[in-house]
Amino acid sequence: MADVTIWNEFRHERERDEVATVYPDGIHATLADALDDHEVTTATLDEPDHGLPPEVLETTDVLLWWGHTAHEEVSDAVVDRVRSRVLEGMGLIVLHSGHYSTVFKRLMGTTCSLQWREDGRAERLWVVDPGHPIADGLEESIELPETEMYGEPFDVPEPDRLVFVSWFEGGEVFRSGCCYRRGSGRIFYFRPGHETYPIYEDDAVRRVLRNAVDWAAPTDGSPRTFGERP
Amino acid sequence: MADVTIWNEFRHERERDEVATVYPDGIHATLADALDDHEVTTATLDEPDHGLPPEVLETTDVLLWWGHTAHEEVSDAVVDRVRSRVLEGMGLIVLHSGHYSTVFKRLMGTTCSLQWREDGRAERLWVVDPGHPIADGLEESIELPETEMYGEPFDVPEPDRLVFVSWFEGGEVFRSGCCYRRGSGRIFYFRPGHETYPIYEDDAVRRVLRNAVDWAAPTDGSPRTFGERP
Amino acid sequence: MADVTIWNEFRHERERDEVATVYPDGIHATLADALDDHEVTTATLDEPDHGLPPEVLETTDVLLWWGHTAHEEVSDAVVDRVRSRVLEGMGLIVLHSGHYSTVFKRLMGTTCSLQWREDGRAERLWVVDPGHPIADGLEESIELPETEMYGEPFDVPEPDRLVFVSWFEGGEVFRSGCCYRRGSGRIFYFRPGHETYPIYEDDAVRRVLRNAVDWAAPTDGSPRTFGERP
Amino acid sequence: MADVTIWNEFRHERERDEVATVYPDGIHATLADALDDHEVTTATLDEPDHGLPPEVLETTDVLLWWGHTAHEEVSDAVVDRVRSRVLEGMGLIVLHSGHYSTVFKRLMGTTCSLQWREDGRAERLWVVDPGHPIADGLEESIELPETEMYGEPFDVPEPDRLVFVSWFEGGEVFRSGCCYRRGSGRIFYFRPGHETYPIYEDDAVRRVLRNAVDWAAPTDGSPRTFGERP
Repeated sequence: MADVTIWNEFRHERERDEVATVYPDGIHATLADALDDHEVTTATLDEPDHGLPPEVLETTDVLLWWGHTAHEEVSDAVVDRVRSRVLEGMGLIVLHSGHYSTVFKRLMGTTCSLQWREDGRAERLWVVDPGHPIADGLEESIELPETEMYGEPFDVPEPDRLVFVSWFEGGEVFRSGCCYRRGSGRIFYFRPGHETYPIYEDDAVRRVLRNAVDWAAPTDGSPRTFGERP
Repeated sequence: MADVTIWNEFRHERERDEVATVYPDGIHATLADALDDHEVTTATLDEPDHGLPPEVLETTDVLLWWGHTAHEEVSDAVVDRVRSRVLEGMGLIVLHSGHYSTVFKRLMGTTCSLQWREDGRAERLWVVDPGHPIADGLEESIELPETEMYGEPFDVPEPDRLVFVSWFEGGEVFRSGCCYRRGSGRIFYFRPGHETYPIYEDDAVRRVLRNAVDWAAPTDGSPRTFGERP
Repeated sequence: MADVTIWNEFRHERERDEVATVYPDGIHATLADALDDHEVTTATLDEPDHGLPPEVLETTDVLLWWGHTAHEEVSDAVVDRVRSRVLEGMGLIVLHSGHYSTVFKRLMGTTCSLQWREDGRAERLWVVDPGHPIADGLEESIELPETEMYGEPFDVPEPDRLVFVSWFEGGEVFRSGCCYRRGSGRIFYFRPGHETYPIYEDDAVRRVLRNAVDWAAPTDGSPRTFGERP
Repeated sequence: MADVTIWNEFRHERERDEVATVYPDGIHATLADALDDHEVTTATLDEPDHGLPPEVLETTDVLLWWGHTAHEEVSDAVVDRVRSRVLEGMGLIVLHSGHYSTVFKRLMGTTCSLQWREDGRAERLWVVDPGHPIADGLEESIELPETEMYGEPFDVPEPDRLVFVSWFEGGEVFRSGCCYRRGSGRIFYFRPGHETYPIYEDDAVRRVLRNAVDWAAPTDGSPRTFGERP
């Protein structure tokens, strides 16, 4: 059981009725429900320190990140703090539009840009790495009947491991499940998610989230010693 | 300009009329035409040594491999010779059903299995690594109106670089352009190709083949010294 | 707790007194002692089926492999069986001179050659990936006062992750801890070990072996479905 | 022949006599001499725009970067400009203490920290990837009689390819030649170099620099299209 912190921008849900209908308590509440076999806390943009003061991050094993319209409102101090904790070993799961979050872009070093289209048609996530722990218990693919489309090229470093590739009914593909290590921390980017499609209610998606938390949680680790040796 | 040898099983074309119609002089002849800015020779299964005696391989910079129904008729001696030359630095481009060739399986170490279906519907190859030399001069995707479907999971080692991901009209995806280094040699697996669809007449596919030859050709290399040091 | 099978060639110990002195019950017995928090069985070359009949491999989570002088006496049937089980998800830990075992060479696809020298001087294994689970609980390096030297170039595919790099007093370096995935299985090559230096009595080496078993053991996995889809 | 720009902080040489003795015209002048088969220009920190206005970077194929004591004096505007050009396809070669440059840290996403010691003893760089173009024409190792020591752990993402590993007489190892792709650009980090040891006069080091420029120079590339599709 890991200490999980779910971070959500939490603006859409308060500002747009069609989002509030799908996620009445916020996307973070739905994600928390999906991860209820862990010790879960939530944090949102408009709390002091965006809900991520040092004492929260210090005790977080895995942080989930959902943001969309207010990436630039996240303070540099919090971005630096999150990034440092990842390098020290905290797991990070970046969801959907979080590809453009400052935290993810800073850890990747690239633009993290992609193509997209409001679409509403089907997505099928193929498991291309069936032996990966994040794919435990899944069928050979996950079907989502209505999604927003994300298309290649996705400007990220070549993933250490690629777990999912999405097929979109409209004709595109996307590397939808990408694993990275940075410093001592594990990072998983997972494409599915949207503010008006109820993606995080899907059982297979929830299974992926649970698997990803298990995978990203730090093991005991060894002391990292840097700088000049005595 | 590289010394290119194109190896073709060359059975379908002589045994089935519908293949002979598409590739009257053999798939190797069409591939040779696509690569005519290089010094090209061809070799086929039913020649002595399958057309690949030591003196041919010694002077080959890049070998292309097309096989389908007779993988097990390729002699161990030739498989060993090809594999050794790749480890020494010869480039290898494995095409379509060549994923099940003994040469490719021996170099990969895995089963190289995949899903497939005679299909006849469209494939679109997306460039997921636009900065890669094998993608030089291409549009963002390559459209093939009628193809056989290959689907994930494709049981190969994680590619060093993934250049193309295919979208299939029937609902599948596939890692269609995979780069590997083994020993000093570069290996490129390229999915498109079939005995009855005229895939190797397509201009974009031919551009990929030329780019791949340029990429796979050995540079000068440094002497490899192995074994016990004096 | 994993089901661990330790395979040892077990010839040196019975044929040479100076080896019997260090490993009186065989290297496998010492390795079994190091892993006694797991369910351990041992197998050796001269047993029927080399001690690895199908029913043993079926229930093995992680297989350790130590061989040196009789790689070519391991039957093709057993090599195929081990390789298949790895691709299905069994972990494999290849030790020291096992780099030249047929099992390892078949899974890597390369020659796995290296430089070596009977040496008797010091080796220091630096942890280059302190966040990796195989490095859990280690200091920044492991010191072995007397070892055989293995030097680069080591002809293996680029490791998925490199955990240790060795420094040798005589002037060489070596990639001593290399992680791979092949099919659903995890493979770890670990350089230390020798028949006359008591390497497997070292506490830090034993910690690495335990960590590696934990890392290589399969998670639940998902069903792998290959071949033509219905 | 590539358009090469060599960037040097150029402070040590003007402030400390023992540096001026080794590099009287600046480290950039010595590097320019090593690369004189290319079209070379130089740029330094104290020039306007640090010598890297947009029109210079637009026409640069490969940029070399040497900095040490004034990383934080490089303006954000120039860092952003360099990084953008790398993502667009410009090659980048980061030398020695440039591991702590803002440009490199921004592209890597990690701290890029390491251990170090003023040492003055020998370093030997082993070629661990003899088939890599950056190793063309080299012996199996490069010997540098007097160097500063850099030791692991080096906090960088796992390199796409590792070409050199250094052995240090004092007991350390280091991943001294690391290849990365970010966006369309190739990045090579090369450890050797120091302000008072005449490392860049060494013939083998100069060969590496020339090879690295050839490797990092962009090929024609394909158009990168990002953002919403029409």
